[in-house]
Amino acid sequence: METIIKIACRDEKGLVHKITGILYEQLVNVTQTNEFVDEESDRFFMRISFTGPCDLALVQERLISMLPKQAEVEIIPPKQKRVLILVTKEHHCLGELLIKYQYQDLNFKVDAVIGNHEDLASLCQQFQVPFHFISAGGLEREAHEVLLNQQIEFYQPDLIVLAKYMRILTPQFSLKHKGKLINIHHSFLPAFIGARPYQQAFDRGVKIIGATAHFVTDDLDEGPIICQEIVPVNHTYSAKDMSKAGKDVEKIVLAKALRLVLEDRVFIHQNKTILFE
Amino acid sequence: METIIKIACRDEKGLVHKITGILYEQLVNVTQTNEFVDEESDRFFMRISFTGPCDLALVQERLISMLPKQAEVEIIPPKQKRVLILVTKEHHCLGELLIKYQYQDLNFKVDAVIGNHEDLASLCQQFQVPFHFISAGGLEREAHEVLLNQQIEFYQPDLIVLAKYMRILTPQFSLKHKGKLINIHHSFLPAFIGARPYQQAFDRGVKIIGATAHFVTDDLDEGPIICQEIVPVNHTYSAKDMSKAGKDVEKIVLAKALRLVLEDRVFIHQNKTILFE
Amino acid sequence: METIIKIACRDEKGLVHKITGILYEQLVNVTQTNEFVDEESDRFFMRISFTGPCDLALVQERLISMLPKQAEVEIIPPKQKRVLILVTKEHHCLGELLIKYQYQDLNFKVDAVIGNHEDLASLCQQFQVPFHFISAGGLEREAHEVLLNQQIEFYQPDLIVLAKYMRILTPQFSLKHKGKLINIHHSFLPAFIGARPYQQAFDRGVKIIGATAHFVTDDLDEGPIICQEIVPVNHTYSAKDMSKAGKDVEKIVLAKALRLVLEDRVFIHQNKTILFE
Amino acid sequence: METIIKIACRDEKGLVHKITGILYEQLVNVTQTNEFVDEESDRFFMRISFTGPCDLALVQERLISMLPKQAEVEIIPPKQKRVLILVTKEHHCLGELLIKYQYQDLNFKVDAVIGNHEDLASLCQQFQVPFHFISAGGLEREAHEVLLNQQIEFYQPDLIVLAKYMRILTPQFSLKHKGKLINIHHSFLPAFIGARPYQQAFDRGVKIIGATAHFVTDDLDEGPIICQEIVPVNHTYSAKDMSKAGKDVEKIVLAKALRLVLEDRVFIHQNKTILFE
Repeated sequence: METIIKIACRDEKGLVHKITGILYEQLVNVTQTNEFVDEESDRFFMRISFTGPCDLALVQERLISMLPKQAEVEIIPPKQKRVLILVTKEHHCLGELLIKYQYQDLNFKVDAVIGNHEDLASLCQQFQVPFHFISAGGLEREAHEVLLNQQIEFYQPDLIVLAKYMRILTPQFSLKHKGKLINIHHSFLPAFIGARPYQQAFDRGVKIIGATAHFVTDDLDEGPIICQEIVPVNHTYSAKDMSKAGKDVEKIVLAKALRLVLEDRVFIHQNKTILFE
Repeated sequence: METIIKIACRDEKGLVHKITGILYEQLVNVTQTNEFVDEESDRFFMRISFTGPCDLALVQERLISMLPKQAEVEIIPPKQKRVLILVTKEHHCLGELLIKYQYQDLNFKVDAVIGNHEDLASLCQQFQVPFHFISAGGLEREAHEVLLNQQIEFYQPDLIVLAKYMRILTPQFSLKHKGKLINIHHSFLPAFIGARPYQQAFDRGVKIIGATAHFVTDDLDEGPIICQEIVPVNHTYSAKDMSKAGKDVEKIVLAKALRLVLEDRVFIHQNKTILFE
Repeated sequence: METIIKIACRDEKGLVHKITGILYEQLVNVTQTNEFVDEESDRFFMRISFTGPCDLALVQERLISMLPKQAEVEIIPPKQKRVLILVTKEHHCLGELLIKYQYQDLNFKVDAVIGNHEDLASLCQQFQVPFHFISAGGLEREAHEVLLNQQIEFYQPDLIVLAKYMRILTPQFSLKHKGKLINIHHSFLPAFIGARPYQQAFDRGVKIIGATAHFVTDDLDEGPIICQEIVPVNHTYSAKDMSKAGKDVEKIVLAKALRLVLEDRVFIHQNKTILFE
Repeated sequence: METIIKIACRDEKGLVHKITGILYEQLVNVTQTNEFVDEESDRFFMRISFTGPCDLALVQERLISMLPKQAEVEIIPPKQKRVLILVTKEHHCLGELLIKYQYQDLNFKVDAVIGNHEDLASLCQQFQVPFHFISAGGLEREAHEVLLNQQIEFYQPDLIVLAKYMRILTPQFSLKHKGKLINIHHSFLPAFIGARPYQQAFDRGVKIIGATAHFVTDDLDEGPIICQEIVPVNHTYSAKDMSKAGKDVEKIVLAKALRLVLEDRVFIHQNKTILFE
């Protein structure tokens, strides 16, 4: 299994040479290297995957000392990531993730599923995945999130996936879990943010609908986009038909985004993502 | 060559039967029929294409008398449509249309091209198409449009294609040419309306860009969408790269929309289009 | 719920008029009509969906007597179709169908699943769907198919879906179930027919892979295509990566094809399909 | 303008480190680096683009001595490539390239166009590009190619683009211009190789058609694929309609492949391509 190194720092000459040099000393077997420089911000990004024994602490130390000040260095040994999934009523995204989990089409562990409704409890049971019903009924958003956070605190997941979780999160919640919250929005952002995007799409008479997986920030549907896909529609589609067609796109996009994040292929920079696929 | 009948009216039982009956009497050779009912507004749309001799006046009369009150009936004998193209500086959409015109890949006549800059005069000359330079320099929008309208009045075109024509039209101009003005907007509407959509797309960090051909209304970029296409992009694309990639989409989408309109396959209804391809 | 009429016959003038006339007499509420004439073979196809009470026997009789000789008329009252799914080891297509069945995203009943391996028995159990293990081990193809046919005979399904069922069927089997057998082939037909299409795709160095859902005929992978979808790949994809990327396409395409067939939107003609979506 | 270095060699540890080290010594401004290892064949590929003064001869020397034996090192200083375009009768691909040439949407020079028919002479004249009519009438293939080669010899182009050039080339011709011959085939290879692919596609009843740009080898339509694109079709498309729809795909794909090759982003390996976009 592969160890991943992710580096982000101010760009300067010779970075690739120096970084690969540090790994070359370790004589690891490098399987893939990707690098990118965002010229506008003069920032350098690199992802390296390798196998073989390696003194990770030494590599971390050498990198930090060699790289420009304030470089971000993340060394990720092979370890399965644990995920919490938040849901409401719709089953399609959760179903997709549960099947991919059961057969390890995606390399992750679903610690549990949390739903603000009970509808999906049985589906979780079918897949022998713990389900926590945390109703928001009668609660202020903040109060409900206290309950959510208790459960999240218990599991300490690496990622929290909002799989058509329909409650609007407070900025505090988004901030608290910054970088770990992945959402699937049922439109091709930035079109149709907010509620009922398929109805909005129908009203606008678009000929294409889509879905967008993104990291959640405190701005509704404004966070860094991870991936997007579309499907053509036409005048014969009611808003409901668009919704049906869109669901298949949503679940595939969410699964794809999750895979990219699980494989540590995603950098966040200036509210956008850099993907090393 | 085909005669086209377009019908739009309030829906009721038996419309297809009655309409086809009127044509059956004429013993024409029907080549294609398409019908659609918009259930929300209870409106019926039909397009029929046929060849063979036909008493068109009689058919019109019978249809009007048979159909619900206020039915819209359009009978379009085979006749090449004449088009005016408005341009600014960018060549790609104009070039696409000029080649398709010269080789009749699209069945239309380009009466002339009007540009608010002179840049594309030579390209028009290469294709022996009249070019009118009508500068907007120093003029109020309305004053410039008076000059445009004089030229348009001279040609009386069936359609006016805005092929990356960058000036914002007044509501009066849009209204005056309602139903005849086709624009290509360099984004996937309704995302990124207005100016510099590729820069907006770059800033948002989308993974897909697109282009939209639409009828122009008095609302900027809000008119009925005819067709849209997309192309994937990624973090390595600068706004300029997105613009380059987008141009090929723009010209293909504009040409496709023009073909649909030239073939009388497009109905406008409630700020959306119904396309019988 | 809708009743569907499917008509295929030799083309002649006035067919749409006459057919819609017969329904108009019944004063049913027609929800959708689609018609198409294949000019090369001079054959007419029509699909009508309607709701409301109707003397179906009378309509059938009137249609048969009115239409050209040897017209095929199928009147399908609203009734949920029953499906048998054949599987081998791969889970992704079966999982997709089982979830869509459980939540009725598709309107059908899974009578049972038959597998020539036991691997997917537990998945069926999770969805409380009967699973029959009918091993082909040590059996000639014909002998194995005798066992399959016994089970199929028991259920008398409307459709048999081969969901990555990997055994090659005899021409007799295909013939016996002609028009009811839907297969998903993991390539973009007619490219890469037969075994290991992803390895073939990898060796050829294609930049796009796909999947094709089709009716099964006695010719391997040569039957009428119902739908196809693609996904881009690149040089970084191993044959295994292509297979992983392809699985999501396969299951979506199979589900889409199944929906079209369940909704009686598919006509077979000259080894091709006509789809009225 | 950028200098490009392309390296292909047997893989071993430390290659990226050593290669970037050689450039680091020169203190050039590296704009992009891409590397890929084909594991099956254990071969390493790298592309580096940079600006700034550089002792290219020294870099070449240091690379050759440092890299594994038989490494292929290509250093390409910024220099516009010259292209010969071969055509027959169809105008769409040629037209696309001529417009992109005139406006330098692609950075290349069209030295001349050679046609085995005269049809496209006027289009070349419109763009002031030399046109050579070299008829194949009454000539054996080899004899015709002698005439072609004379013309090619005269120009010594960097690339020869077959823009819907419909004559079948001899293996000798393909070999003679190996690595320089780019063809656009009007199907989604490997489906429908050879003649009349749209008719083949129509007969097969595919729901998707496409185009493929590839390097030409002595095997008809079997050379390394550079890029492919598709467009959906349906039962209403005649073979002619498919051809019309396909033309827009062909020209865009050809232009895209040409750009990749002009920018030295393409490696050929084992009859496939590695693209560093």
